[in-house]
Amino acid sequence: MEPELQDAIRRVHLIVGNARTEGYHVVVGTGSTILFQAALYALSSSSAVVAQPMKVVCAAPYYSQYKEQVELLQSRLYEWGGDANTYDDEDKTAPFIEVVTSPNNPDGSLREATVANKTENGGKLIHDLAYYWPNYTPITRPEDHDIMLFTLTKCTGHAGSRIGWALVKDVAVAQKMTSFMQITTIGVSKDSQLRAARILQVVADDCESKAGAFGYGGDDADRTFFGECRKVMAGRWEKLREAVKGNDVFGLPKYPKRYCNFSGRYFQPAPAFGWLECKEGYDASALMKANNVLTRGGDTFGASNRYTRISMIGREEEFDRFLERISGIHCVNEDEDKEGEEGLVVIHDNNGNARRGNGNFLHEVK
Amino acid sequence: MEPELQDAIRRVHLIVGNARTEGYHVVVGTGSTILFQAALYALSSSSAVVAQPMKVVCAAPYYSQYKEQVELLQSRLYEWGGDANTYDDEDKTAPFIEVVTSPNNPDGSLREATVANKTENGGKLIHDLAYYWPNYTPITRPEDHDIMLFTLTKCTGHAGSRIGWALVKDVAVAQKMTSFMQITTIGVSKDSQLRAARILQVVADDCESKAGAFGYGGDDADRTFFGECRKVMAGRWEKLREAVKGNDVFGLPKYPKRYCNFSGRYFQPAPAFGWLECKEGYDASALMKANNVLTRGGDTFGASNRYTRISMIGREEEFDRFLERISGIHCVNEDEDKEGEEGLVVIHDNNGNARRGNGNFLHEVK
Repeated sequence: MEPELQDAIRRVHLIVGNARTEGYHVVVGTGSTILFQAALYALSSSSAVVAQPMKVVCAAPYYSQYKEQVELLQSRLYEWGGDANTYDDEDKTAPFIEVVTSPNNPDGSLREATVANKTENGGKLIHDLAYYWPNYTPITRPEDHDIMLFTLTKCTGHAGSRIGWALVKDVAVAQKMTSFMQITTIGVSKDSQLRAARILQVVADDCESKAGAFGYGGDDADRTFFGECRKVMAGRWEKLREAVKGNDVFGLPKYPKRYCNFSGRYFQPAPAFGWLECKEGYDASALMKANNVLTRGGDTFGASNRYTRISMIGREEEFDRFLERISGIHCVNEDEDKEGEEGLVVIHDNNGNARRGNGNFLHEVK
Repeated sequence: MEPELQDAIRRVHLIVGNARTEGYHVVVGTGSTILFQAALYALSSSSAVVAQPMKVVCAAPYYSQYKEQVELLQSRLYEWGGDANTYDDEDKTAPFIEVVTSPNNPDGSLREATVANKTENGGKLIHDLAYYWPNYTPITRPEDHDIMLFTLTKCTGHAGSRIGWALVKDVAVAQKMTSFMQITTIGVSKDSQLRAARILQVVADDCESKAGAFGYGGDDADRTFFGECRKVMAGRWEKLREAVKGNDVFGLPKYPKRYCNFSGRYFQPAPAFGWLECKEGYDASALMKANNVLTRGGDTFGASNRYTRISMIGREEEFDRFLERISGIHCVNEDEDKEGEEGLVVIHDNNGNARRGNGNFLHEVK
């Protein structure tokens, strides 16, 4: 790992106050995705592990890619265990891994481990803190979990550089994760590491120049890179809530205001994704698709298809077009429907075209 | 994948004449290492595959990392089958994968598939052609295998950018490999892709400006990037052979001269690694280590410890120091040895310190 990048990562965490780095080892990866796999390997391949593959669980709704990554190579080391809420290990002693995503993807909620605290041996934890930055959510405390994953993608938006990092407490786990990176990709692009280091240095310099290190609050913090991002996100959420308010089909989660130590303000989270809920009986992503909006449906997140995930971090013109499209959607009980199926509803899109849905599909009425 | 990179890759192959690209799909990866794993996944996860993990074999001596990569996650899709020369599938119908590395790492030999041609269904092939560039070996024909792996690391030396590519004939295999890259790393650093594209464009421009496309031969080709690299490599091999000639411990493989279509000359291969053979009864890497040279011993390549792999592509000063150190090694039958063990030999290093070896270890006599 490039020393400049390690220094920049530690410096940004210290300034933002979202994670402890003292006493932690930093492991760099080609994005945080592969570091998740490195962590699975590190936690499941130790000699203390029994013959059974370790179950990997996550409370639903969970990031759809975890399951895909866990199952990809049909490993004998670990296997997907599904929703942590319903996970039940009879003897409460089998080793397992719980992934805790906080703020959560897709629904933006702040999460604590569920299963890990219920069983005797506690299980192993991987905390995916990709979205725990003041652009999205109030920073209430520096987190200090065993394995914490972060990514440049969500911190500054430079997804194309494929740079993620893990803060790891245990040196043996960090070494195993590094060894996984070594074997699978030999290393992480130096070009990207150096660029990421420079980006994070600029972000850190910006924070310090606006308010001086550790002296944030109010207007000063609002003018930092994170503060400006937060304003954009908050503005989009306001527009989205406005668009949804006017219709009788969709609902959105409500987030309580919290005090953000970095910003010196109380504010509501403005997550990177909207977790849109539909009226009972609707397939939310099919409904969106019928209105020319591509989203990821609830079932891919281990949840009901009444939900779908919409991106809040696309380009401005995309977001505006999206708002336009969903604003026109509303629901009408069509009494005069010829087929007369129970519970059938007609959705009118912006152009006055009527569509209908009955939970699993949508088709043109006319 | 960035279109500039794809174009540059196809252009360089066309100019060098080492691989066909027409009708091939290009899959980019974070180095060719992960593309090897992507190929394993693509070949072993198709629905036609039986319940048994597919064996992955490679003729010894083989690149030590293949085994490590195959075994890392204890996949149910594939497993390491060892040396292709001794691989014996009784019913000759079980699907398997043979990795063909040509020129071979560690010993620089030109390779053809072995097992794949012996059995009924032929098996699946992955060709690792990382070293098939005119800096190392005569380019005798454009290769046209099903899956061919290349890497910037060995082509131009830019290992730190972590850019590799696969040329893949079958579209379904290419799609599966891309999907593997998508799931494990989401994508490949754009920073690195754009830099690699520029590097390959410069290399291609250089070749064309020296001799005009497809008009190579003799002096013109010698002044290209590849020609200059070849001169460095050939010079190092000459020095190495000189250093080894004077001592009675080591031997090196001999390579026949071949006509290189790119260079318009006959020349001997000058591989990126030297595959050093020791006198019977010696542990080659232990012997080198005792003389302060770190090498990778034969056993890690599925071969005897009489062999060890030395790098020919380090920095100039490192290479010179290495030559200095091995030049001083010679072997003496020490009749007056007090312990009088049979076959014992004393190795004198540069400083006149005597060391001895008996096949598995070396220790100070005095």
